[in-house]
Amino acid sequence: MASQSPLPPWLPPQLTQSPSPTLHALSTSLLPHLLSAISQIGATLRTSHHVSLVGSANSFGDDQLNVDVASENLMRAALAKCPLVVRASSEEDPEEKEVHQGEASGAVSSDERFSVAFDPLDGSSIIAPNWAVGTIVGIWKGETALGKNPRDQICSVLGVHGPRTTVIVAIREAGAAQGSASAEGVCFELGLGDNDKVELLNPNIKLSSPPYKTRYFAPANLRFAADSSEYATLISSFITKKYTLRYCGGLVPDLGHILTKGHGVYVNPVESASKAKLRRLYEVLPIGLVVECAGGKAVDENGKDVLAKEVQGCDERGGIVFGNTDEVEEVPPSEEEARLYYHGLPSRPRLIARSGTRMWVNPQMPGFTTFLGTQNMYPRVLQPVGRHPQLHQQWNDGSSSLRAQILKAVDGINWTALDILRVGLNGEYTLTLMIAVLPDSLSWRDGHPIALQCKGIFESHGIQGVECEIRESVVNLCTNAGLDPAMSASESPDISDTGIVLVVWSYLPKAPTHYSNFNYLREQ
Amino acid sequence: MASQSPLPPWLPPQLTQSPSPTLHALSTSLLPHLLSAISQIGATLRTSHHVSLVGSANSFGDDQLNVDVASENLMRAALAKCPLVVRASSEEDPEEKEVHQGEASGAVSSDERFSVAFDPLDGSSIIAPNWAVGTIVGIWKGETALGKNPRDQICSVLGVHGPRTTVIVAIREAGAAQGSASAEGVCFELGLGDNDKVELLNPNIKLSSPPYKTRYFAPANLRFAADSSEYATLISSFITKKYTLRYCGGLVPDLGHILTKGHGVYVNPVESASKAKLRRLYEVLPIGLVVECAGGKAVDENGKDVLAKEVQGCDERGGIVFGNTDEVEEVPPSEEEARLYYHGLPSRPRLIARSGTRMWVNPQMPGFTTFLGTQNMYPRVLQPVGRHPQLHQQWNDGSSSLRAQILKAVDGINWTALDILRVGLNGEYTLTLMIAVLPDSLSWRDGHPIALQCKGIFESHGIQGVECEIRESVVNLCTNAGLDPAMSASESPDISDTGIVLVVWSYLPKAPTHYSNFNYLREQ
Repeated sequence: MASQSPLPPWLPPQLTQSPSPTLHALSTSLLPHLLSAISQIGATLRTSHHVSLVGSANSFGDDQLNVDVASENLMRAALAKCPLVVRASSEEDPEEKEVHQGEASGAVSSDERFSVAFDPLDGSSIIAPNWAVGTIVGIWKGETALGKNPRDQICSVLGVHGPRTTVIVAIREAGAAQGSASAEGVCFELGLGDNDKVELLNPNIKLSSPPYKTRYFAPANLRFAADSSEYATLISSFITKKYTLRYCGGLVPDLGHILTKGHGVYVNPVESASKAKLRRLYEVLPIGLVVECAGGKAVDENGKDVLAKEVQGCDERGGIVFGNTDEVEEVPPSEEEARLYYHGLPSRPRLIARSGTRMWVNPQMPGFTTFLGTQNMYPRVLQPVGRHPQLHQQWNDGSSSLRAQILKAVDGINWTALDILRVGLNGEYTLTLMIAVLPDSLSWRDGHPIALQCKGIFESHGIQGVECEIRESVVNLCTNAGLDPAMSASESPDISDTGIVLVVWSYLPKAPTHYSNFNYLREQ
Repeated sequence: MASQSPLPPWLPPQLTQSPSPTLHALSTSLLPHLLSAISQIGATLRTSHHVSLVGSANSFGDDQLNVDVASENLMRAALAKCPLVVRASSEEDPEEKEVHQGEASGAVSSDERFSVAFDPLDGSSIIAPNWAVGTIVGIWKGETALGKNPRDQICSVLGVHGPRTTVIVAIREAGAAQGSASAEGVCFELGLGDNDKVELLNPNIKLSSPPYKTRYFAPANLRFAADSSEYATLISSFITKKYTLRYCGGLVPDLGHILTKGHGVYVNPVESASKAKLRRLYEVLPIGLVVECAGGKAVDENGKDVLAKEVQGCDERGGIVFGNTDEVEEVPPSEEEARLYYHGLPSRPRLIARSGTRMWVNPQMPGFTTFLGTQNMYPRVLQPVGRHPQLHQQWNDGSSSLRAQILKAVDGINWTALDILRVGLNGEYTLTLMIAVLPDSLSWRDGHPIALQCKGIFESHGIQGVECEIRESVVNLCTNAGLDPAMSASESPDISDTGIVLVVWSYLPKAPTHYSNFNYLREQ
């Protein structure tokens, strides 16, 4: 019986205490075969001098295919030796197939069945120049990886083929005993030698916490910065903050650098979902598990955790930003963001919190500069909501559940106005609930959960895509009958037809008053 | 006798025709030992998992020293086996020492004696994350590398320790038969296997010529771009021109990428000579030989060929820019440079040629932008020469040899004025002979040699540091008695005391005339 096999000696000690049947099966039956395959891929690369001989892209394409196929075959052979693997797919053959056709796998419990998704050789463009490349494996509990909760991806195995062959492994079992290392996630590093020798090099890889001695950045697809002022500005800010550039273009070695140094932020932006290069199943999700188990964060191009969404198809693609949590995650607006976020609005109110998860970068037009002043910033502009019957109906109905819940959410804060507007930047408009609060009355820590809560209230009422922003603003009382005479049309041309909305950013308060404005949406 | 040994089978065919005694000795006696040492360094790295185990810098420092020492010892042992090597020094032990102390080396001819300079393991910061690193060896003909003509560095051997162990070799013998491959320089790639197996992978590495399919750039010390608007602007121009970023931070793998892809430009700027990191003897010069033998160009931070100047001390340092010749070398001013070089001068004359070899980048202040307009450009400004008795004396003497030679150099062109001024940009002033020519009368191809010649004439008269610039300019005749009334003082405040100089860029010619002004320097 599998449960009688001793655990391998290279398993980190914190995982050897009462391992679950799943972890036992994984580490005694599946992982040794995968480590052996990675070692063999390393040995194959070591002698594959002629693969990289041809400099031209076409010929190299053929050669590269040979190395890819060799690696693919080694991986498939390893999986064939493991009766617990039900289905597998790979970047080379991106379709889930049964590994043991015709064989009954009913003999093992469902806790000990796995499906595997892998990229046998990642980094084809840098194989010829003899740079480090990688092998990526994601192991899912159960008989398929598709349509499953990403929490079912319980293990990642990343082989680094450099001067040595090393392996980064992450294990996190949603079903393990609460509080155990296995449930919380463990990331460790192994060193492979000849004759399937495996050494535990680092039993517990953890990214560092600030302050950092050196900060690293890895900007993938840098060419995109020529087209995207947002990306260009981000690059510019890394340079001005004196981050050290470390980007070799191999996803696994690039991640390995961050884990070894304890710091780094890797950014792979995408122009559009259709142009994304990284496969979620073979690249993004396995990387995501490693990063999370090492205490970091990995988000997609929209700022969502890459492990939040299931994979529906083998070819699904996306962008990724990963690294130390504070580099990636939602953090309080910097002083610069708080001060400049509303650049373009006459009073430029101070931002307190927002529900949006995209990292703020100083929106420079049309390029970037190391001197991020306001001179070249895109202005933020406001527009009325326009036609949106569902929103109008619920928002303007004094007795609606939407109104009641929003009012309850903001009940404890000194809010002065609630408005729904389209907030625009460089032609891109976002439907936004704007909450104005009295200056110095609310912190980001208190306000941020409210912004997230309000966004959720709209979603639960069937209204998608409404973000929430909280800003400081004194309010100038007026009616919805017309414009405040102190505000000329040219200062707010975009919202001149909304009347009452103006009260929220009148910049010269004649009589600052705490006055709560629940602003109606004008009927279309 | 050494000359009886057969040439090794991995030597490229073009080198096996009537090899000189030097080449024969090099390839039969010295190179095999070095290749064996590089192979052993690769094998050592392959099993040195614990070297990179410790993440902290201090502990890693100790571990790293161990790998460095191991590699150093392997190299020293290899050299000890080779009686032809007289002296050697390395980055680990940077002092030239006799390899065979007390032994008489008189038995071999002076053509078969070598000195060796090497860096056993280059790229210490990326050993821990298991990225590709390198071994660098420079082989000099004779008994020392110091104070010698860099042409005596007849061979470079660069080991690339990646998934495989490969070696890039360059051989160029100044003394070989004219027109032979050996005299012109050959760059080739070897693959190393177990048991000292050596394979010839690419017998003739040559960088591509334009147009390029993909263009690559490798920006070392990118943090410096935060302090240098010139470097920042260069980076910005690579991005806007959509060069692909490939920079791993290991000098040898970075060069290997460029050679494999056939294109690339590597830039390692230095803030000042004292802050330069790269050692000329162990890094810059061996790299330079490889680049030149592959048909590329390698220059220092001042635009001079890195192989133009001898090495006086083992610790001498410098910057380097290398890659395809057209990316690195003196090329005609781009349309942008021709048009904007004199931004800041009232008439902004068009630049035809200049003797300076520093790559022109749009001098943006204070940062960089992908939109390289003139709005943020540093203006070029002019100042009188100031105190320089030697120059005044020779320049103002109508019968001096300096004058005669300059006048002869410009004899065939339609020059309209000759002036010596200090040309300044962002506070840095360069003593410059400015030659004005009639519009459309001179091309860069004809003008550039004249600019270089004039610079040389000053040097041969003991006046160093005078550059030469040729520009198009119509001339407004006036005397040296005072200012042209059409030019207000505010437009040329820096040179208002030079009087006659003004004629060369009067922007509104009252009566365009071909008039040759040999402008005197005002006495101090």
